[in-house]
Amino acid sequence: MAGKLDLISKCIRTFPDFHTKGIPFKDIFPVLKDPKALAAVTDLFEEQVRRAYPQVDLIVGLDARGFLFGPLLAQRLGVGFAPIRKKGKLPGPTLSVAYSLEYAKAEAEMQEDAVSAGKKVLIVDDLLATGGTLYAACELIKRQKAEVLGCLVVELKYLNGSEKLQSTPVFSLIQY
Amino acid sequence: MAGKLDLISKCIRTFPDFHTKGIPFKDIFPVLKDPKALAAVTDLFEEQVRRAYPQVDLIVGLDARGFLFGPLLAQRLGVGFAPIRKKGKLPGPTLSVAYSLEYAKAEAEMQEDAVSAGKKVLIVDDLLATGGTLYAACELIKRQKAEVLGCLVVELKYLNGSEKLQSTPVFSLIQY
Repeated sequence: MAGKLDLISKCIRTFPDFHTKGIPFKDIFPVLKDPKALAAVTDLFEEQVRRAYPQVDLIVGLDARGFLFGPLLAQRLGVGFAPIRKKGKLPGPTLSVAYSLEYAKAEAEMQEDAVSAGKKVLIVDDLLATGGTLYAACELIKRQKAEVLGCLVVELKYLNGSEKLQSTPVFSLIQY
Repeated sequence: MAGKLDLISKCIRTFPDFHTKGIPFKDIFPVLKDPKALAAVTDLFEEQVRRAYPQVDLIVGLDARGFLFGPLLAQRLGVGFAPIRKKGKLPGPTLSVAYSLEYAKAEAEMQEDAVSAGKKVLIVDDLLATGGTLYAACELIKRQKAEVLGCLVVELKYLNGSEKLQSTPVFSLIQY
């Protein structure tokens, strides 16, 4: 595990002022450019799921960077993948939940038939920072009477994001 | 191959008026919900690459739905994955190319170090419709003096999209 984590960490680059001055932005795309590092992310997620959540029925990924990691994990586990996107991007009947970003509000949306009642769901994203989007994702899944087993993220930034998620367990590969 | 294509086709749903009245919208997310259908997409892409483009160095995927399929194919082939996103979403030095959407203009962007000169690239997306985004993607890769071997898409809609791509070959699983 340590070798795989090192490989992943070495790929992540920091840009000091991208998006918001003074807040370092972590670029995970070099992880995807290195096939061994990307395989390591999927390996470590898969190990955690088989250890802690073998009963999982569905992987849910957040647009857009959760789309990079979610289908890879779902295929390893032999389960399906469903998306959560910003409002207006998914066709058919949907549910939506509003959440706060650092300087704005947004709405996360899920197709009504994406998950059925009673199903056990894991949510995948690249980063947990403020926790706003992941909180909205958990709410969307609970409103469909499905169960959120936990969240899996590549990086966890200490901005009290996991507090917002309350009792939902968060597994992260790298913490800042 | 026919069995796999059937499985994929059966998962794709049509919504008549989503986004634009009168233009049927194809929803590919049920393909991701069925692990066998998603594996079939990757299988068929992989077969085509091994047959026609065994020399590929890098898979490039377009935000956001190309992110669902690109990393899966890149991992099967043992090569890296790099993203093209809308302007302003990628940190560090970038290149950008403007393109036209049906009712608007947009700019596609790529990190300057995402691909080196001489590398052989395949571009993955869910859908080729007007071809505007894929055309911009090809331009971005060529400006970095890399070679576009071709584009792989799940669906091809006959809106003259492949004409815009001129000499770039397009491989599609399903045609409307």
